[in-house]
Amino acid sequence: MNRIFIVKFLRFKRANTHKTMKAIIITIGDEILIGQTIDTNSAWMGQQFNMKGISVEEIVTIKDTEEAIRTAVHAALQKADLVVTTGGLGPTKDDLTKETLAAYFGKKLVTHPVILERIESYFKKRGRTLNEQGKKVALLPEDTRLFMNHKGTAPGMWFEKEGKIVVALPGVPYEMKRFIKEDILPALESHLQGQILVHKTIMVAGVGETAVAEAIEKIESSLPAYIKLAYLPNLSILRVRLSAIGTDEEKLRKEVQKWTDQIVDTIPNWVYGFDELRLEKAVGNLLLEKKARMAIAESCTGGQIASQVVSIPGSSEYFEGGVVAYSYELKTALLGVKPETLASKGAVSKETVEEMARGAIENLHVDYSIATSGIAGPGGATADKPVGTIWMAIASKDATKSKKFQLTDHRDLNIKMTANLALNELRKFILKENAAAEA
Amino acid sequence: MNRIFIVKFLRFKRANTHKTMKAIIITIGDEILIGQTIDTNSAWMGQQFNMKGISVEEIVTIKDTEEAIRTAVHAALQKADLVVTTGGLGPTKDDLTKETLAAYFGKKLVTHPVILERIESYFKKRGRTLNEQGKKVALLPEDTRLFMNHKGTAPGMWFEKEGKIVVALPGVPYEMKRFIKEDILPALESHLQGQILVHKTIMVAGVGETAVAEAIEKIESSLPAYIKLAYLPNLSILRVRLSAIGTDEEKLRKEVQKWTDQIVDTIPNWVYGFDELRLEKAVGNLLLEKKARMAIAESCTGGQIASQVVSIPGSSEYFEGGVVAYSYELKTALLGVKPETLASKGAVSKETVEEMARGAIENLHVDYSIATSGIAGPGGATADKPVGTIWMAIASKDATKSKKFQLTDHRDLNIKMTANLALNELRKFILKENAAAEA
Repeated sequence: MNRIFIVKFLRFKRANTHKTMKAIIITIGDEILIGQTIDTNSAWMGQQFNMKGISVEEIVTIKDTEEAIRTAVHAALQKADLVVTTGGLGPTKDDLTKETLAAYFGKKLVTHPVILERIESYFKKRGRTLNEQGKKVALLPEDTRLFMNHKGTAPGMWFEKEGKIVVALPGVPYEMKRFIKEDILPALESHLQGQILVHKTIMVAGVGETAVAEAIEKIESSLPAYIKLAYLPNLSILRVRLSAIGTDEEKLRKEVQKWTDQIVDTIPNWVYGFDELRLEKAVGNLLLEKKARMAIAESCTGGQIASQVVSIPGSSEYFEGGVVAYSYELKTALLGVKPETLASKGAVSKETVEEMARGAIENLHVDYSIATSGIAGPGGATADKPVGTIWMAIASKDATKSKKFQLTDHRDLNIKMTANLALNELRKFILKENAAAEA
Repeated sequence: MNRIFIVKFLRFKRANTHKTMKAIIITIGDEILIGQTIDTNSAWMGQQFNMKGISVEEIVTIKDTEEAIRTAVHAALQKADLVVTTGGLGPTKDDLTKETLAAYFGKKLVTHPVILERIESYFKKRGRTLNEQGKKVALLPEDTRLFMNHKGTAPGMWFEKEGKIVVALPGVPYEMKRFIKEDILPALESHLQGQILVHKTIMVAGVGETAVAEAIEKIESSLPAYIKLAYLPNLSILRVRLSAIGTDEEKLRKEVQKWTDQIVDTIPNWVYGFDELRLEKAVGNLLLEKKARMAIAESCTGGQIASQVVSIPGSSEYFEGGVVAYSYELKTALLGVKPETLASKGAVSKETVEEMARGAIENLHVDYSIATSGIAGPGGATADKPVGTIWMAIASKDATKSKKFQLTDHRDLNIKMTANLALNELRKFILKENAAAEA
């Protein structure tokens, strides 16, 4: 226990001597306060700021009233160097952030002709006409740094006062994310004071946090105080992240790489890549290397695996397509699963998924296939096949491999975890084939 | 601009005359600030409080330091009648909530023998032994109302000072939820003064916030001060929410229903349902009513539509399955698209999506089908088909209807918006058919 505290203390002291920038995130919107929406924006921003060594001191959600906005921004400026607000920049009557901040910083609102033009062309492109209310978005505080919105209409705003910064961004997640990555973080660079954070994320699939923590326990306890290790699990994918803090970037990078190598050498089969590499991209890369094509035969995952594969730009190079064979009829008609197999073994069985995977190879003329069939829930369970029973198979022209998993009681989790587990099985299948070919 | 402020001001005053109980939720924990965990507790609590007419004024996440806890609780008590903290009640050194609150309210910490016994038996039951650190949980502020933890060890605490309440609960979701439902909400009843909030959400698809705001502008500006309207857009789905505050629940429900009806009557074709109904569920309900089955032929959406349909439990009742025809070959082999059509018109064309939709009807033997083909981006654009060009078709046994959309520059958005737009087109197609059959 003591060791942890020393680490915390050292880190804290170190951060202080370097004058860590402190940030407060303010989310504006009643829909979060009444529990209609879960605030995922702030967690994402917290990650981004943390990566840059900016310490997020508070995350606050407030009502969309002038008073709440003014009070929260004022209070945050007493405690932080950087205040980021999201929400309340749209054209409707609920949207008061711009008006409130302009008043707070003593700025007049004036129509910004360039932005008005952009909004007009944005609407025109989409075959819509801009009404008076929509034009309100171009009414902006004068003498204020503005950032263009490349994914929507409302611009981002950057106010400064007595060395402190207030940034106002739209609350739409993809608009906010682009602003943070492409405008705000780069603009903050000049305000950060030489403190450097170096991260390396090891991407692990198909194994739990506890098993990984146990396997690399010795490495973890040997880490120097300025390197921190975090486990970030999500739907059968685990990120193991090393973060080093200091001033000598070159040295930090070397150190982090050294520890990364040690971890990878300890759990080589579990690691599929680094630094936010998506599993579907890792699989795509293997297929591209082999100039091979794949197809997917999905039952319980119902298109989830295909949609993940297709989310990667350029996936048409290796993805032929797939079949969502939700009914017995389609399993038979499109994938050639024998009616006898379905009748005697059921859809959720080793035999059925193997026939589905082989059917995809033969009927869709590809090199590799993935097949899934399971009880996603909440209905459909039998005595020997409870909710969460999942069969998956991988096939190539010459071989078929299947595996059973017992997952959770939650439909949504079962579908998404199965998709990741199946992609990981295909990855391991191809790697094993590659290794055999080399031997 | 002025009118907006008057409405808001009136609303604010009105709320005050009814003495709504105001609450602030404080979440204690670094893991949320660095984005390692998403705070779902607060949204859940917000829902619970909101239903009881307690207005959640703020949701705050803070660091797990004594200073942060003391400062946040003190600030919250200036603004709210009820402050609920979660987290920091466990046995480790990071857990400082209890110590901080006891000091803040001037209470000594003493070992609570009954709770110590409970914790000992809790451990014994699970075959674990309680160490000295674990016993720390039974060290509790004296003269303080405590609630037993039936799902863990740390008790809940209830402090009162000058008519204001501070409740401290563990952060583990299922422990916190049990405390709120079974202890805190019942204990709050005597403090509530009959203030009630009534909500109604109108679900709209396929049309933007601005168009809806324009269409219902007159209704919006006629709303009485105690009814508020909010627009919550997300990926071609728009929630229009009415919230009424007052004391007479029956009257509020009637009033909200009256205004809801007015809005629906003004934009009948855009509304697909109420109160968080998902679009794929609305479509499913229509199919169930008709005892009809559907299939999906996806190109650019790559399984997204199928995965949304399948996300609804029981979808196998009306969902046959689908084809993700990413390549020309599969479009021809599985859906019967003519090679000449693909050669002369291209995959992203009216002719191709219509043949895909018809192919799904004929080859997959269903009553309705959806087909999509488009340039999701970033690659694949041509001079006359920029990124975001999407064709979709809906077919029944007797008819085919197709439509072109020009969406965004972003692959992910284009895929998800297309999925919602296509589901909405199928919904409108079936409704039109139903109307024609009735006429």
